[in-house]
Amino acid sequence: MTDVTRDRNAYRFHTEVRVRLSETDAVGIVFFGSYSTYMDVGRMDYLENLGLTRLGGAVRDLIPGAVVASSAQFHRPARYNDVLELNVRVSRLGTTSYTFHFLIANKRSAETVATGALTLVWLDDDFKPTSLPEEFRDAIVGFEGTNIDA
Amino acid sequence: MTDVTRDRNAYRFHTEVRVRLSETDAVGIVFFGSYSTYMDVGRMDYLENLGLTRLGGAVRDLIPGAVVASSAQFHRPARYNDVLELNVRVSRLGTTSYTFHFLIANKRSAETVATGALTLVWLDDDFKPTSLPEEFRDAIVGFEGTNIDA
Amino acid sequence: MTDVTRDRNAYRFHTEVRVRLSETDAVGIVFFGSYSTYMDVGRMDYLENLGLTRLGGAVRDLIPGAVVASSAQFHRPARYNDVLELNVRVSRLGTTSYTFHFLIANKRSAETVATGALTLVWLDDDFKPTSLPEEFRDAIVGFEGTNIDA
Amino acid sequence: MTDVTRDRNAYRFHTEVRVRLSETDAVGIVFFGSYSTYMDVGRMDYLENLGLTRLGGAVRDLIPGAVVASSAQFHRPARYNDVLELNVRVSRLGTTSYTFHFLIANKRSAETVATGALTLVWLDDDFKPTSLPEEFRDAIVGFEGTNIDA
Repeated sequence: MTDVTRDRNAYRFHTEVRVRLSETDAVGIVFFGSYSTYMDVGRMDYLENLGLTRLGGAVRDLIPGAVVASSAQFHRPARYNDVLELNVRVSRLGTTSYTFHFLIANKRSAETVATGALTLVWLDDDFKPTSLPEEFRDAIVGFEGTNIDA
Repeated sequence: MTDVTRDRNAYRFHTEVRVRLSETDAVGIVFFGSYSTYMDVGRMDYLENLGLTRLGGAVRDLIPGAVVASSAQFHRPARYNDVLELNVRVSRLGTTSYTFHFLIANKRSAETVATGALTLVWLDDDFKPTSLPEEFRDAIVGFEGTNIDA
Repeated sequence: MTDVTRDRNAYRFHTEVRVRLSETDAVGIVFFGSYSTYMDVGRMDYLENLGLTRLGGAVRDLIPGAVVASSAQFHRPARYNDVLELNVRVSRLGTTSYTFHFLIANKRSAETVATGALTLVWLDDDFKPTSLPEEFRDAIVGFEGTNIDA
Repeated sequence: MTDVTRDRNAYRFHTEVRVRLSETDAVGIVFFGSYSTYMDVGRMDYLENLGLTRLGGAVRDLIPGAVVASSAQFHRPARYNDVLELNVRVSRLGTTSYTFHFLIANKRSAETVATGALTLVWLDDDFKPTSLPEEFRDAIVGFEGTNIDA
């Protein structure tokens, strides 16, 4: 299982979502699959904050790399209309892939709701893995500083 | 409001879906927006049954026309794991647009859960409305017979 | 078809959403069913703005009334990461039901993307239609003024 | 990372889904979060096949336990209208928790699309972890045989 820190101070980027009715299920809580969407929102807000959503070609314009792995741990349920704080960091920069970590907290109670990780691979125009662009790598390292395993 | 018949005999095509947990909401019933997905499944199953999903260019390969209007009426709630019978017909063939009608029933109780309609416009390669292909029109008329307003 | 005005000045409440990747489809645009979720977000933001999301019992705590009809017209496609302005009004207050109208515009271009309507029925503890609470009716009329058909 | 076998013969239960347009995204492939829904469908079909979806109280009627962890690896993209074979097994039965493994393959090409895991905890009426019911445990062991780490 991916080891995602629950220390909020390890995260330098924060964004938030409010739980929509469509994201809950008949158990009365947020459907576990909805956290994939929250992580996706968190990662795009992170990249947009660094101006990194418009690098390269068509696919990369949309998403910088393809998701090759995801994981999440669900610590407490969230409910309709809860505001969730998405704490996002890039925890690893490899040669062709990189990894986001997420700490999702209930904004009101500050309690941890979920933690998770996404790993993406950078693709060339033939959808083959290729090296992360220097511009991308530099921007991430500049933002995360010593916070990252690069 | 679109007048969608609740006479099941007016529909010559039937398919079904089973309600998934992700399609329900915290009220304990199917989220009303999930019926858009059910209508979309119903329309694609209908077109596939007539071999009409692979006409023309790239966009049309995916979806024969763009949805320009939708409507739905919700008569009774549906719940997790319910099997829903999707009754589908093309009720109108215009010059560049056509309309699907849907009667969605609980398979076990045979009660009407929802009715709805989708109107689509056929598009050329520049995304401008264009005449429905003859092959498309003929297949629909052949299937629906006198059932249709063509 | 519901007549929803495209005059932005007719709407006194505005909120917004940014299009998520999960809300788009393989055609490259926002899936038409995602607009149901946008309308749902718009209506809850509207009601929350008036302090009307916590009236009455359990079901009403979650959603003030059950959706009994929806409709939408799609004028222009929206795409990933577009910011959509949701203009929301209550256009009708009946005895037991009421209707929201929506004008959804691309925030950057100000062009109309979609229009739509939702009709809800107020329910008592036995899920039977019942009169709209006076507190609810008064708050809506106070906000909409002469803008409403009450 | 959870080690999920890609040997199809290790799975004794199979079900399938056909990719819906709403499950794809603007990249042209299935949105990675949609696999959560596929895993959820797979697990419920598995439990229903063994008659295990109606044990105990209200929450357990809906879902036998709460999801506490999920993970997935994405090996190849899937596209609109692809039929996906969901191979499902329970790979571990603990005292209060148990784990599903999934191998998701393209039915036509037989290629592996994704693998994944879900871990659930059984809850009592106060939502505290409690021992898996004997009836549940016995049915799983009876079905999986020596295939399981119980």
